[in-house]
This record gives sequence, C-alpha cells and structure tokens, in this order.
Amino acid sequence: MSLFRPNIDRIEGYVPGEQPQTTDWVKLNTNENPYPPSPRVFEAIQAAATDRLRLYPDPIATEFRTVAAELFGVDADWVLPANGSDENLTIIIRSFVDPGELVVSPYPSYILYETLVEIQGGRHRRLPLNADWSWDMQTCRPLIEQAKLALVPNPNSPSGNRWSLDEIAELIPPQGMFVLDEAYGDFPDQPHCGEIFSRPAGERVIVTRSFSKSYSLAGIRMGFAVAHPDVITGMRKVKDSYNCDGIALAAATAALRDQQWMLENTAKIQKTRAILSATLVELGFNVVNSQANFVWATHPQREHREIFEALKQRNILVRFMTYPDVTYQDKPLTGLRVTIGTDEQNEILSAALREIV
Amino acid sequence: MSLFRPNIDRIEGYVPGEQPQTTDWVKLNTNENPYPPSPRVFEAIQAAATDRLRLYPDPIATEFRTVAAELFGVDADWVLPANGSDENLTIIIRSFVDPGELVVSPYPSYILYETLVEIQGGRHRRLPLNADWSWDMQTCRPLIEQAKLALVPNPNSPSGNRWSLDEIAELIPPQGMFVLDEAYGDFPDQPHCGEIFSRPAGERVIVTRSFSKSYSLAGIRMGFAVAHPDVITGMRKVKDSYNCDGIALAAATAALRDQQWMLENTAKIQKTRAILSATLVELGFNVVNSQANFVWATHPQREHREIFEALKQRNILVRFMTYPDVTYQDKPLTGLRVTIGTDEQNEILSAALREIV
Repeated sequence: MSLFRPNIDRIEGYVPGEQPQTTDWVKLNTNENPYPPSPRVFEAIQAAATDRLRLYPDPIATEFRTVAAELFGVDADWVLPANGSDENLTIIIRSFVDPGELVVSPYPSYILYETLVEIQGGRHRRLPLNADWSWDMQTCRPLIEQAKLALVPNPNSPSGNRWSLDEIAELIPPQGMFVLDEAYGDFPDQPHCGEIFSRPAGERVIVTRSFSKSYSLAGIRMGFAVAHPDVITGMRKVKDSYNCDGIALAAATAALRDQQWMLENTAKIQKTRAILSATLVELGFNVVNSQANFVWATHPQREHREIFEALKQRNILVRFMTYPDVTYQDKPLTGLRVTIGTDEQNEILSAALREIV
Repeated sequence: MSLFRPNIDRIEGYVPGEQPQTTDWVKLNTNENPYPPSPRVFEAIQAAATDRLRLYPDPIATEFRTVAAELFGVDADWVLPANGSDENLTIIIRSFVDPGELVVSPYPSYILYETLVEIQGGRHRRLPLNADWSWDMQTCRPLIEQAKLALVPNPNSPSGNRWSLDEIAELIPPQGMFVLDEAYGDFPDQPHCGEIFSRPAGERVIVTRSFSKSYSLAGIRMGFAVAHPDVITGMRKVKDSYNCDGIALAAATAALRDQQWMLENTAKIQKTRAILSATLVELGFNVVNSQANFVWATHPQREHREIFEALKQRNILVRFMTYPDVTYQDKPLTGLRVTIGTDEQNEILSAALREIV
C-alpha cells in the first residue's frame, strides 16, 4: 500500500523537455539562449568560489535584491529570489492555495501550473484560448471571478504571442492573486518591466522572472519574484531559509549588472526569430507572431510528429507538443515549438526542414 | 484582508541563526565547518563554469546520484539530490502529509520540522525527550503508532547526542514513513551509513544528508535523500524539474569523491570537540557527550543569555537557545549550542569564557 498522498500517486509529474548530456545536438527544444552568459558572470563565479563556501549564504540575498529592484524601479523589499522561477511558482501555490481553492491558468500554456496545483490539492480550471490565442472571455470571466489565484505567462508558451497590458489586466481575479509569469519578458519588441504594478489591482500581482532564458543561465538555478512587500514577506515564510546558492546569487547579480550583454543577445535572437518565421511561412507553416525566444509552427498538411522525428534523426531537437483536449481543425492540437538558435543553427534547421517538408 | 492561507498568516516562519556578512567574527552559531572544502571542489566549479551554463543541468543528476549511491552501497535510483537537505525535508512533507495527518518529531530538536508541517496543514505533535535526552517512550509510543510520518535527527540538535540504532528503530511508525535526518551523520565516533535500511521496516525509511556540515559546503545548497526506489520515484514527482544547480551538482560530486578530505576535517573536529567539552566542564557547565560538530552546554548557576551577549560583545557568535515549553530544574530550558571551530577559534572562545563565567 502506498503511503504517498493520493494526489501524488495520481499525478504523472511534470515531464521536462529532453536534456541530452552530449554536445552533438542542435538543441532547440527547451528555450535556452544560444549565446553564452556575460563574461562578468564567470568573474563573479570565480570570485565567489573561495573558502567562504563553508559558510551559509546571505539568507535574504541583500545584494541581489538591491540590483534586481533597481531594474524594476522598486525597493529591495519588493524582490524575492528563488532557486529558479519554478521555485517561486511553487512558493506562490503553497502560500495562497488551500485544498479545494480554485486556481486558473490558460490552456494551451505552461503545464507546470496545473501540476503544482494538483500537488497542493487545489482545484484547477483551464482558461480557454481561441485558435488565434486570444482569450475566450465569455468562458474565462466567471472562472476568474471565482479564482483565488490566476497564473498567466506573457509571452505565452508554446505560442510565443504577447497579450496587451489591457488584456492582462482583465484577467486579475477580483478576489484573488495574479501571477504574471515573465520568463520570456525580455524578448518582446517592447520588453516588459512591471507596468502592471501601476494598475488598480497592482498590490495583488506577482511578477516572476527567470535567468534561464534572456540571461543564458539555465545551468544555475535562479529566478525572482517582484510584488508588494506584504506579499513578499508572506512568501518568505514559505521558502526554505537558504533557498539560494551563494555562487548562483553572485552569478545572477553579475548578469543583472551587465544589461548590455543581455540586450545584445536578445536583439540577435529577435533578428533570427524574424528569419526563421519567414522561412517557416515559406515552407507552408502557420507561424504565430512570436514575442519570445521560440516560435510556434503548425503545418496544415503534415504530421508534426513526423517532422519532429525526421529532425531528431538529423540531430536537431525541437519540441513536439500535443494538446489532446484542444480541437483545432477537427483534430487534437499538435505543433512544433522551436527555440531560436544562432544564425548558424538556424541555417542547419532550415536546410533540414527544406528536405523534410 | 490577507489572501494568504490562514496557515501562512498564523506562522512566524523559521528563523535561521544570524549570518553576519562581515568576516571579523568567530562564528560558532550555525554549525558550519571551520575548514575549507576540498580543493577538488574548486576544480570542479572551475570546470563547470563554462558556456554550458546557458543549458539546463541534468534534471536527474545522473553522475551525482551514481557517486552518492556508491557511498551507501545502493543503486543510483535510491538517491534524490536536492537544493539543500531542507528542500528534501520540504519535498517529503509535501509527498506524504495530507491536511490533518499526524507528524511527530522530538523536542527539543530541529524546529524546522514543525514549521514545514504547519505550512502543509498537517497536525504536529512533539515526541518528548527526558532531561538526559533519552526518549520518554511511554508518551512517545502512542503518538508514533498513529503517525503518518516521524522525523528524527541523529545526532540530535541542539544536544549533539546520538541514539543507538535499536532506539531509532523503535521510533519507526508502524503505519507511516520515517525520516532519519543525518545532517550530522559524519561526525559520530562511528559514523552513520544507512544501517537502518537493513531493518524490517527499512523500505519505509528515508535518510537525509547535507553538504553544509561535514563537506564544508553550506554556501552551495546541496543535500540528498536515500530511500527505496519506490519512495524516490514518488518524491521526484513533487520536486521542481531542475531543483539542482549545475555548478552545485559538480561541486558536491567532487566533494563526495574526496572522502579523505572530509574525514580528515571530521577527525580534527572530533579532537577539538573533546578539548572544548573538557574546558566547558572545567568551567562548571553541564555538557552533553556530543557526536556532532557542536556541543550543548548548560550552566547550573549562570544566565545563558548573558553569556551569549558577553561573547557577542567580544565578536564571538554562539547560539542561545530557548525552549519555553520545556521545564528543566524548575525553569524553562535554555542553553548554548556552540559549533566546533578550529583549535585557534576554540582558544579564543575558551579564553573569553574564562573571563565571563
């Protein structure tokens, strides 16, 4: 007999994208940055790798919070760093969701939200999106009105589309908390930077950020949340005392300080994104206007799984996504989510696609 | 009106020991190792700090698990690494404790267990210890019989005493899971190494380990759990996908491979522990026979808070502990928990104590 909670026995657990540990792949499946982190990051790691590692890190990450707060034009007590943005999502669910309470998030979107709600014993409902990734507000509104918590990534994944601030503001539950997941917030033509806090319900909003994408630091686990100090104070009770590694804090602080490096890489990714989108359209794909570091492509005639497999045979890894509960053109929705690589990787991918499609 | 769960509003949150960020302290308050980590650790950090940081780490930490498993003489699927041992404790509570289910742990002991149960909404009861840190089994037995989960650190903190394997085996709930927290498991004269798994209830036992103490790596956050593969598989569903930092995994793997370094430091700490214990006895303290990297000292006549403050004025930081719910010699139990430093730090401490007491 299992002694696990029934919730845990029931779930499959979130399955992340493949992470081959060899380097002979054109790896375009988990939205990593194709460019290396800032040289300042390596200097900071070097400087942090001393005998001081025998001591615990600063449990409240004073220096990191100061630098992150400046970026958002807020005080340091608005910032909570975490062991990856996923840890902040976990802390949020554990802070605000009692068993049976309603949590909503869009679908198709980041499926981890649903897994975390299931683990916590909350009740999850999906906010349906139209085929063009706009909101089906007639169905969404009553769900939002009852929700204790809503989580929305902007730009969204797998679609890469970006909703306007006015559209987002409509999604804040009148009686609940709202998480704006800006993991991809540095990639839009006009990047995000906490604009939502100046809206009337801003004190019930938590913005989450990641170092895995725009800062090229998926290998160290760091993310942070920005919210009103009362919200941060409560979340801090839920986090482990020393949830952030001393080396990771040093690396992330250095990355934040080198905005120019991040912005230059982001600009290159935006250019390659335009080239890849055009190529995919030329090959007959429908492509969403992406504001993220990936594109969502569907082909009206071809089987996406076959394209995925054919690319994999050529050592090119993209993400094949399937959403059995969404019907699109009379079939369950499937598609390819392709991370933006370097121009060189993009040419390899494009050449392969020209052969396959 | 707060939107936090009532559990979260109610708790104070766990308060860790002070972490001054300046280096002019004789810091003996949070059981860090006074010796630096192995040189192999710094080589590993260096080797891991490459452009590969733009990629996610291995989500199942294959290499780390292989090395840790060897140490325990088990297969790699018995091992779950985490972002510090505290994260594994959090994962365990979230895996096994539904709202209202009974969790037990000794008192006085590591207070984080109680905080984690409160956050989860479980019901916590304390297993009382006698004044000599032995178990009050008449009170404990009925609690253990009803418990879904029991957590016991061995050696215990703040006392530093070690219970025998036979005593520990009596504490395994007949219908529940048992966590043997071996954060200090490398420090006993005869160290721990998974002996409990060969007991009849071994498949319901989880042993947790830390890199913060014996491996001198509190600054990187790493710990691991050892348990039957069915237990590890379930716990893995609850953890964040990428809960372990790539650099921390590399550092911890290197630390495990350099057992000699860890054992030499541990032997030095054991020697200093004997010297400090003798000094404290000489100064009139009652001192528990410690099997950890700290000692628990109580003075029959003096106020512990005053000694703590007098040491602090001399830039020596020890831990003043107070347990208002435990009566000892007609007063609430208080005492000093003193981490074992280097011989040099120990002489500074002893000289100060000779002045103060």
